[in-house]
Amino acid sequence: MSNNNIQIFDTTLRDGEQVPGCKLNSEQKVVIAEQLDTLGVDVIEAGFPVSSPGDFKSVEAISKIVKNATVCGLTRAVENDIKVAAESLRFANKPRIHTGIGTSESHILHKFKSNRDAIIERAFEAVKYAKSFVEDVEFYAEDAGRTDNEYLARVCEAAIKAGATVLNIPDTTGYCLPSEYGAKIKYLKENVKGIEKAILSCHCHNDLGLATANSIEGVINGARQIECTINGIGERAGNTALEEVVMVLKQHPYLNLDTNINTSMLYGMSQLVSDSMGIYTQPNKAIVGANAFAHSSGIHQDGVIKNRATYEIIDPKDVGVTESAIVLTARSGRAALAYRAKNVGYELTKLQLDDVYANFLSFADRKKEINDNDIHQIIETSNVYQQIISA
Amino acid sequence: MSNNNIQIFDTTLRDGEQVPGCKLNSEQKVVIAEQLDTLGVDVIEAGFPVSSPGDFKSVEAISKIVKNATVCGLTRAVENDIKVAAESLRFANKPRIHTGIGTSESHILHKFKSNRDAIIERAFEAVKYAKSFVEDVEFYAEDAGRTDNEYLARVCEAAIKAGATVLNIPDTTGYCLPSEYGAKIKYLKENVKGIEKAILSCHCHNDLGLATANSIEGVINGARQIECTINGIGERAGNTALEEVVMVLKQHPYLNLDTNINTSMLYGMSQLVSDSMGIYTQPNKAIVGANAFAHSSGIHQDGVIKNRATYEIIDPKDVGVTESAIVLTARSGRAALAYRAKNVGYELTKLQLDDVYANFLSFADRKKEINDNDIHQIIETSNVYQQIISA
Repeated sequence: MSNNNIQIFDTTLRDGEQVPGCKLNSEQKVVIAEQLDTLGVDVIEAGFPVSSPGDFKSVEAISKIVKNATVCGLTRAVENDIKVAAESLRFANKPRIHTGIGTSESHILHKFKSNRDAIIERAFEAVKYAKSFVEDVEFYAEDAGRTDNEYLARVCEAAIKAGATVLNIPDTTGYCLPSEYGAKIKYLKENVKGIEKAILSCHCHNDLGLATANSIEGVINGARQIECTINGIGERAGNTALEEVVMVLKQHPYLNLDTNINTSMLYGMSQLVSDSMGIYTQPNKAIVGANAFAHSSGIHQDGVIKNRATYEIIDPKDVGVTESAIVLTARSGRAALAYRAKNVGYELTKLQLDDVYANFLSFADRKKEINDNDIHQIIETSNVYQQIISA
Repeated sequence: MSNNNIQIFDTTLRDGEQVPGCKLNSEQKVVIAEQLDTLGVDVIEAGFPVSSPGDFKSVEAISKIVKNATVCGLTRAVENDIKVAAESLRFANKPRIHTGIGTSESHILHKFKSNRDAIIERAFEAVKYAKSFVEDVEFYAEDAGRTDNEYLARVCEAAIKAGATVLNIPDTTGYCLPSEYGAKIKYLKENVKGIEKAILSCHCHNDLGLATANSIEGVINGARQIECTINGIGERAGNTALEEVVMVLKQHPYLNLDTNINTSMLYGMSQLVSDSMGIYTQPNKAIVGANAFAHSSGIHQDGVIKNRATYEIIDPKDVGVTESAIVLTARSGRAALAYRAKNVGYELTKLQLDDVYANFLSFADRKKEINDNDIHQIIETSNVYQQIISA
């Protein structure tokens, strides 16, 4: 792994699956895990083994079939959780245990009714115990986004001392601004003793719509892993969307940060997860939404027809979408109409187009979208129809 | 308007309506405009009047009924567009014409087949002509996100000289990183002569999932208007989501940047736009998605039941949502089960809960979500049922 390689840690099957009403069965999880492995993710978080017998079985089944990726199981900082996770991962080529504890005041006081030193002690013991089963142990400091940096650094040091290979810094409530989250990662990179023995990981939630930006600021400031889900699914407003962070890095080569993802599989992967969970992306979802590459306004259509790059920064083929759509509505201009008319067999002169366009507008004001049949009808009912067909 | 007030420019009815297949009719637009006015947006972009007779009528109708907000019409830098826009806005209390032209190399060379000086001249003439009709003229430098800052500053200076009151800096293709977009606004704020006579406006697209973050970085760096749409709808991956930027500013009071939005109307507004356009938000949409305040994992539910702030940074009531949901799935823990059981009439002791929980898990592994009827059935089929009802 080069120093500029960003590890993609997919948690679609764990944090993503926490969408109310969208639980996957074991067979579905195995199919998704196989595809994630082919997609090129570095780590698959397969579940939270102690949470239910069904989840244990899923993690076990995934451990058996994944070839390349690390397979990871989540635990609390609780001995039995860790023992059960290790058991569920025993068939994995590259097993990882992901353990941790809440570190913000809110978590320490309300959730654990504990104190700072006791939490550090529990963090250390949990990592050490996990380390007795597997080499690769990731530690999470839950609600790190609202944990003060100085204390967070102490927690991280303890986890490294106990053998953690990855330090996960979750913005659990999706509260941080990009500049704040970036500064937190930078602080840890510069102030945690022994930080060279572990990598920092971004785990951001999307409650304020900032998960993608926060993760990107995280890796710009030194983190080397991003935790994310396909379609950004997850509890509440969800997690960082895998397809978004991967394409942000790909589209900004000057950042010099790469992933191992085969981006041409992104659209298919999105569809697989949507279908399996019965939870669909909105049409304007970035990268994988039905309209992500659809142009309907006249100004934009004219630009795209002249040169795709005028309004598109991503070639749709790069993410597995066949082609950009030129959709005809009352906001479309002459260029789009001429383009679509040509596709169905009419070559219009400039004067013919003026006449057909007037007819098109009165048609389009009454209809949401103009399809190929409509185009035939519009041309057939225009004043210049005889002239067009006799040309 | 205080210096720290961020103007909210809603373009749901113009840029938002450019969603393929989701055109609104005039009556629907008027209803939405009235609600936007009550919501407290500062500017309503009502349409692109020259684009079709239907759009002209909508802008005219909206101009007549909006009481507080500025009503704005879009134009290209074309005389007839501007004249028609002025005509459609003649009944508005506070009319604004929004005119502009592409300024990136891609737009200048491919779309306009022109050169830099000629574009500046057209920008100047368009603003000057618009100014002959209305006092409030906003200028957009299309594709400003990919326009080099030095040239962009020259374009802005020309627009200000011609009388522009607002300078819109669109990241038309959704390409910028937050740090880049923030730096662009900062550059303009520091280098455009006469900048004190106008305000800078952020208009960001969400192609890489960064629109909200970019807009926030824009206002942190000196912009004083954000252009956005309800639910983030719009062409391709859509625009900045109004509800997201408003709540980011509200949740970070130390930024000292306020809006005039009545946030308790956000959820209702989102539903109105979804219903009118027939385009629904995904469940994990930030702020207004069906699951934005739903908790399903055991760890989170336990935390929220002890203290809401453990996992929620926004009180759902602040955005018009009645209460957070505690959803029961196989990932839920004892605390959530006890909470929901109590809601349907069972007070379980710790030992009873252990038994009922085991029954719950085997039930939940077979079912996606556990409803109140299921809870009754789970308790009735548990070993401790007689003990519970005789208590």
